[in-house]
Amino acid sequence: MTHTLSPGLTARATVPASSANLGPGFDSLGLALSLYDEIEVETAESGITVEVSGEGEGQVPLDSSHLVVRAIEHGLLSADVKVPGLIVKCRNRIPHSRGLGSSAAAVVGGLAAANGLIAQSDSRTLTKDELIQLSSEFEGHPDNASAAVLGGAVVSWTESEVPLPRYAAAPLRLHPDIRLFPAIPQVRSSTAETRVLLPDAVSHVDARFNLSRAALLVVALAERPDLLLEATEDRLHQPQRAPAMPASAEYIGILRRCGVAAVLSGAGPAVIALSTRSELPAEALEFGAANGFAIEEMAVGCGVRWTAGDSAVSG
Amino acid sequence: MTHTLSPGLTARATVPASSANLGPGFDSLGLALSLYDEIEVETAESGITVEVSGEGEGQVPLDSSHLVVRAIEHGLLSADVKVPGLIVKCRNRIPHSRGLGSSAAAVVGGLAAANGLIAQSDSRTLTKDELIQLSSEFEGHPDNASAAVLGGAVVSWTESEVPLPRYAAAPLRLHPDIRLFPAIPQVRSSTAETRVLLPDAVSHVDARFNLSRAALLVVALAERPDLLLEATEDRLHQPQRAPAMPASAEYIGILRRCGVAAVLSGAGPAVIALSTRSELPAEALEFGAANGFAIEEMAVGCGVRWTAGDSAVSG
Repeated sequence: MTHTLSPGLTARATVPASSANLGPGFDSLGLALSLYDEIEVETAESGITVEVSGEGEGQVPLDSSHLVVRAIEHGLLSADVKVPGLIVKCRNRIPHSRGLGSSAAAVVGGLAAANGLIAQSDSRTLTKDELIQLSSEFEGHPDNASAAVLGGAVVSWTESEVPLPRYAAAPLRLHPDIRLFPAIPQVRSSTAETRVLLPDAVSHVDARFNLSRAALLVVALAERPDLLLEATEDRLHQPQRAPAMPASAEYIGILRRCGVAAVLSGAGPAVIALSTRSELPAEALEFGAANGFAIEEMAVGCGVRWTAGDSAVSG
Repeated sequence: MTHTLSPGLTARATVPASSANLGPGFDSLGLALSLYDEIEVETAESGITVEVSGEGEGQVPLDSSHLVVRAIEHGLLSADVKVPGLIVKCRNRIPHSRGLGSSAAAVVGGLAAANGLIAQSDSRTLTKDELIQLSSEFEGHPDNASAAVLGGAVVSWTESEVPLPRYAAAPLRLHPDIRLFPAIPQVRSSTAETRVLLPDAVSHVDARFNLSRAALLVVALAERPDLLLEATEDRLHQPQRAPAMPASAEYIGILRRCGVAAVLSGAGPAVIALSTRSELPAEALEFGAANGFAIEEMAVGCGVRWTAGDSAVSG
């Protein structure tokens, strides 16, 4: 049965940035970062109003084609909840087109904000599994979306069943000594564009190279940070992407030669380094500064949270 | 400096069977089983004498081409220890050519027996890392060898560096509720033959399918047995091998349709099922019995152990 909400109801969501792939874990491993977008939604008499401040301000569409709006509408539709109109305010801190999961955050945040509205109807709110499924459908892959939903580190996977893929994820344990150092370049990138560079086929040798490192990375993240360097080796996407983002590739190379596990964040051009040391090598910091990378330590992110009206029903 | 041992010194080694691959973890994941070969070695005045009882009796060469002898000699050579002659007695319980790691056990057991002799010289015994490296060089892949050395469940990997590959492994945690049910067919198989069936190239989609499951399997083995079925999906070797071992493929299919995580053990034709239940479904047991599979629960195996003379210096 369809529930129609009256105007004047509010909800909020807070959703983290994320680094996907993490080297060998292409389309599977993900890690939430403590850099959050905030979404505020209010039911209105009619129409769609979108306000964006921060990242993307003045660059993204301010109508129903806005990704957050589409996610909110999709979430409401999934729960069979209708609204006469919406006012959506986005406070964006996650840079766009850098490989930090801003689009996954927009979708997961929009769905979570929808949950805040759904909680004020008679319908059932979306579970975390449903948030992962719906947001991954938007994304086409579950790694960023799962990290944004669950927080922390995640392994995600795709069941390629007809008629639609089924997406799922499980949390990974993360050793408390592991520190995260994202490096965010000023240069933008399009995931869609860089994905095209990947080959349709790979050698069986490279496939088993990556699967062994992906398995090892789960061990390294959980309890063997000493193995992070070996565990973050990859042959399936970073070598292919390096020519398109030479500064990122060189920065990764410098860090790895210094023994620091550095990988592209998602499809790049941002880079994330995982280290048990309190700071990165001077050589890498100098290269980063000279090449327009903003480098600073960041804590592990929490999963998406949402509130309905003034109450904290969480997610 | 070369050390030459006098005749009459003895050493023993006990080494487990193992299941490699475990579905998605081709050439990487391995699991030791509580089925052990025993090797007894004694230095002699001259010559090589080999006695084999149990599996392989009357089928394997009884001279210096015997795999255990080659491993013992390789281990002694690595430690710069010489012997005038050797008497080697093998009590084999691990069936040959079934995918249960009998050749890895022979090599690891031989190297460990060598360690028992080396311990009676002034040379340094081989470390576990060296045992993994040397035995994987014999094998060409580190999964069975690592499981035989370390026991329990392992993730192993290969650094394809010139001049020779470097092999390494790390132990995995194994949830205490997971029970192991190997099914050992009467039919023999040759790993070398079945390996030939694998393609040189795979799709990028299949490569990421397997890496996500390999990562997930580490999680499932350690703390999420409920995810074992999904975590043991594979596209890199089992579908390709199925036509060569239809009974094994059908047995796996029956178990998986019943919700039990079953995979080829190594390159097959043996199958191993991982389950939290105390017994396998009747339908699978009936099929197994009708098709010549010996099916029984087996505990997780311990890593290789060795003793020098009468003393227990272990490994």
